[in-house]
Amino acid sequence: MTTAYSHLCATFTRLSHYNHLSAIAGWDMATMMPSAGSQARSEALAELSVLSHQVLTAKQVGEWLKQAGNEALNDVELANLREMRRQYQQSALLPESLVQEKSLAGARCEHAWRVQRRANDWEGFSENLREVVRLSRQEASLRADATGSSRYDALLDMYEPGMTSKKLDVLFGDLKTWLPELLQKVVEKQKAESCIIPAGPFDIEKQRQLGLKVMERLGFNFDAGRLDVSSHPFCGGVPQDVRITTRYNEDEFLSSMMGVIHETGHARYEQNLPKKWLGQPVSNARSMGIHESQSLLFEMQLGCSEPFLRSIYPLVNAQFGERKGLDESNFIKLNQRVQPGLIRVDADEISYPAHVILRYEIEKALIEGEIEVEDIPALWSHKMQEYLGIDTVGDYRNGCMQDIHWTDGGFGYFPTYTLGAMYAAQLFQCANHAIPTLQDDIARGDLTALFQWLQQNIWQHGSRFSTDQLINNATGETLNPAYFRQHLENRYL
Amino acid sequence: MTTAYSHLCATFTRLSHYNHLSAIAGWDMATMMPSAGSQARSEALAELSVLSHQVLTAKQVGEWLKQAGNEALNDVELANLREMRRQYQQSALLPESLVQEKSLAGARCEHAWRVQRRANDWEGFSENLREVVRLSRQEASLRADATGSSRYDALLDMYEPGMTSKKLDVLFGDLKTWLPELLQKVVEKQKAESCIIPAGPFDIEKQRQLGLKVMERLGFNFDAGRLDVSSHPFCGGVPQDVRITTRYNEDEFLSSMMGVIHETGHARYEQNLPKKWLGQPVSNARSMGIHESQSLLFEMQLGCSEPFLRSIYPLVNAQFGERKGLDESNFIKLNQRVQPGLIRVDADEISYPAHVILRYEIEKALIEGEIEVEDIPALWSHKMQEYLGIDTVGDYRNGCMQDIHWTDGGFGYFPTYTLGAMYAAQLFQCANHAIPTLQDDIARGDLTALFQWLQQNIWQHGSRFSTDQLINNATGETLNPAYFRQHLENRYL
Repeated sequence: MTTAYSHLCATFTRLSHYNHLSAIAGWDMATMMPSAGSQARSEALAELSVLSHQVLTAKQVGEWLKQAGNEALNDVELANLREMRRQYQQSALLPESLVQEKSLAGARCEHAWRVQRRANDWEGFSENLREVVRLSRQEASLRADATGSSRYDALLDMYEPGMTSKKLDVLFGDLKTWLPELLQKVVEKQKAESCIIPAGPFDIEKQRQLGLKVMERLGFNFDAGRLDVSSHPFCGGVPQDVRITTRYNEDEFLSSMMGVIHETGHARYEQNLPKKWLGQPVSNARSMGIHESQSLLFEMQLGCSEPFLRSIYPLVNAQFGERKGLDESNFIKLNQRVQPGLIRVDADEISYPAHVILRYEIEKALIEGEIEVEDIPALWSHKMQEYLGIDTVGDYRNGCMQDIHWTDGGFGYFPTYTLGAMYAAQLFQCANHAIPTLQDDIARGDLTALFQWLQQNIWQHGSRFSTDQLINNATGETLNPAYFRQHLENRYL
Repeated sequence: MTTAYSHLCATFTRLSHYNHLSAIAGWDMATMMPSAGSQARSEALAELSVLSHQVLTAKQVGEWLKQAGNEALNDVELANLREMRRQYQQSALLPESLVQEKSLAGARCEHAWRVQRRANDWEGFSENLREVVRLSRQEASLRADATGSSRYDALLDMYEPGMTSKKLDVLFGDLKTWLPELLQKVVEKQKAESCIIPAGPFDIEKQRQLGLKVMERLGFNFDAGRLDVSSHPFCGGVPQDVRITTRYNEDEFLSSMMGVIHETGHARYEQNLPKKWLGQPVSNARSMGIHESQSLLFEMQLGCSEPFLRSIYPLVNAQFGERKGLDESNFIKLNQRVQPGLIRVDADEISYPAHVILRYEIEKALIEGEIEVEDIPALWSHKMQEYLGIDTVGDYRNGCMQDIHWTDGGFGYFPTYTLGAMYAAQLFQCANHAIPTLQDDIARGDLTALFQWLQQNIWQHGSRFSTDQLINNATGETLNPAYFRQHLENRYL
C-alpha cells in the first residue's frame, strides 16, 4: 500500500528538483549572467517559485501530513515529517496575495536602494521601506497568530527554529555587559603593537590560486563544487554541487582569502549533509545559525587562529613572496586586528556582535510596532555610539542603509550571525577537548580529526534533531555563550 | 473577455520560463558543472521536462487550440497559433510510455556508446541501437499515421517543417551527380599548390582572445551572451542570454576560431529573434535548417571567404605573430583546404554533403524498414567508397559509430546540415546582389549592411512564415540548390 508518507516523500523530492534548478540559475545570475539576461531570468525564477509554492501548499499535501501522523514511521522519518510539516505550515499560512505584494515591495525597495544608498538618500529609501515593514508586520501577525508566539519571534523562527526573543534578550543582554569593555581593552592593547599593512597590488589570479589551495587544505570536494566570483560572496548550488564565490580586490588579499575560508565552512556542511536522505527536508542544514556556526568555525575559530595561520603562511608566501608586512608574524597580526568601524561585513569578531545586537533591537521594536521607520536613524546613531563608540549621525549610507536584509523584508535574520559565532566557539572548544592533539594537528596542516568530529557531530545529521538536541548531543549542553566570551578573551587579551 | 488564444499565450509563456531554466542548467552541465553533480542535475532536468510535457499536452490546451481557431486573430497571432498547434500535436501524439521508453533506451545507448566507440565495438553498440531503432520506428509510425506522411518524413518534419524525402531525393540526387567529380577536381588542383601547416603551440588564452575579437567583429552582443568552453561546441541559452562554446587545442587554432564563427552565426540569429514576441512559439527560430543556414553563412560563405579572412588576418597576427605558415596568403589557403576524410565534423564544405547524404540514405531506409541495423556497416563502407573514395571497412569507430545522433534516436536530423549549407549559399548570393558594396565592405571589416540584410530578411521573422515563404520573401524563390554548386565552383575551381 502506498502510504501518505511516501506520497509526501515523492512531493518533496519533486520540490528538491525545482530547488536544484532555481539554485543553479540563481548562482548563474550572480556569477555568469550578462546584464541583458536579468529580466528573463527573474521571470523564469519567479515562475518556478510560484510553482514550488503551489506544489508545497496543495490541499492534498495538508491531508497527507495529517494521515502520515498515524502511520508507523521510524525516527528519521518522524524527523522528516516534522520538517515537512514545518515547511508546509510556513508556506500555507500566507495568502498568495500577501506573498506577491511583499515580494514586489521588496524587489522595488531593494532595486531603488542600490541607487539611494550611494546617494545617502534616507528620505527616498524610508518611503519604500515603510511599505516593506507594513507587509512584514502583516506577515508576522499571521505567523504569530498561528503559532501563538510574538510577531518578531514568528519571523525569527523561520531562520532559527526554536529560537525566541526571550532567549536572545538573555544572550545578547549578557554580551552587552562585557563586550564594549573588552573591545576597548583590545583596541588599547593593539595600539601598542605595530602592525604593517602590506602594499599591493596582489595579482588576482594569484589570490585565486591561494584561495583554491586553502580550499584544498580545508577539504573542499572539487568534484562536487566550484569557486567563482560574485559581487557579494555566497555559498549556493546544491549539496551534490556546491558553488561558493568570493570577490577580489588588487589592493589587498586578506578579505578574498578569509571570504573563501568562510564560504568553505558553509560548503563542507552542504557537501556532507546526509547523502541517503538528500532531496528530503530532513537532509537540509539545521538552521541559519548552525550554518553560520560552520562558516565561522572555519573562518574565526580555525582560520584566524595562530597555528592555522602559521600552517597556511607558506601558501601565502608562495603566491606573494617576501614583501613588507608579509612576514609570518605580521600576517598573523593582520588577521587578528580589532578595529570598530561603521560597516558590519568588515567588522572583526569582537565588534561584529555589537552590529548584530543593534540591528536586532531595532528590527524587533519595528516589527512589534514599538517604533516606526522614521525612528531608525536616531536609534542607530545612539546605539552605534553606545556599543562601538562611533558617531554616525547623518551617514545613512554607512549606517542604517548599509545592509540588504531589511530592503526585502528579511527581518529576523540578523541574530543568526551572532548565534553562529557562539555555536562555533562552543563546538570548537568541545572539539579541542575531544581531540587532544588538535592544536598540533592544525599547526601541521592536518585537519582530518577536526573534520571527522564535525562530520560525526554536525554535518551528517542534517535536520534530524532540533538545534538544542544537536548542540547538546555534540557538546553535552545547549547553547552556552560563555565559550564565545572565553574564546575572545583568550585570543585577544 | 479572456480568449482561448490569450490562455494559450499564458501557457506558452510559462513553458518558455521552464525552457529558460532548462537551457541554462543544460549549458551549466556542459560548461561548468563538476562531475559529481551529474546525477542530481539529470534528475532535476528530467523533472522539468516531464512538467513541460504535462503542461503542453494538458487536455485544456487541446480545447483552447480548437476554440482559438474561431477567434479573430491577426497574421502574427495566426502564425503563433499554427506553431502552438504544431508543438502540441508533436507532443500529444505519443503515449507517455513510449516517450519514456525511448528516452531510457536512448540514454542507455548513448552512455554505452561513449565506451563502445573507443573500443570499436560494433557488436555491443548494435544491440542497443536495435532497441532505439525499434522505438524510433514506433514513434515514426504514430506520427506518420497522424499526418498521412511516410514514417521517415514524419521524423524529418520535426526538425525541418515542410521538408519531405521526396524533395530531399531531388536535392541530394542532383548533388550526387556533380559533387564527387568536383571534389576530385579540387583535390587535384590543390595538390599542385603548397600549403604549410603552421606549428603550435597556440596559447589557449590567445585563442580565446582571438575568438572574442572575431565575435565582436561579427556583432555578437556581449551584454546578452557569453563564450565558454565545452567538449562539443554548441549554441545554447535563451535569446536574451545566448551561451556559445568552443573547444581549444594547443596544436592548432583554426578549429576553435572557425567553431566560434559558426556558433556566432547561430547566436546572432537567436539574439535577434523578434523581441516583442519572445516567449511565444512564433518567436522561435524557423527550423534547424534555417538555424544552420545562419551558422554556415557566417562560417562558410563569409568566414572562409578571401576578403573576410584578409580582414581578420591582423587579429590573428596580433595574437600569434609571424610564424611559418601564418602569412596572410597561407592563412587563406588553410581555411579553404579540401580533403575528404572519415569524420563528418572535420569535413570541408565540399565533402560535407557526401557525409550527410550517406547518413540520410541509411537512416531513411532504416526507419522505413527497408534495412536493419546489421546492414549499416556494409552500406556505410560502400557509400564512403562511392561518394568520397575512402575505404572504411572494419573501422566502425570512425565510420558508422562516429556520430551521437542515432544513439538517442535523432533520426531525421542529418539532412538539415546540408539544407543549411544550401540556404546559406542562396541567402548570401542574394545579399551580394542587394548590397553592391558587400565584398568591399567585408574586406574593410564593415559587416553592418550584411547584418541589416539578415535582420530584415531572416532574424526578425522568427517562425512567422513557413520556411518556403521565408526564403521566397528573402530571395525571390524557394530553395534552389544551384547557388550552392555555384558557390563551391566559384571558390574552389
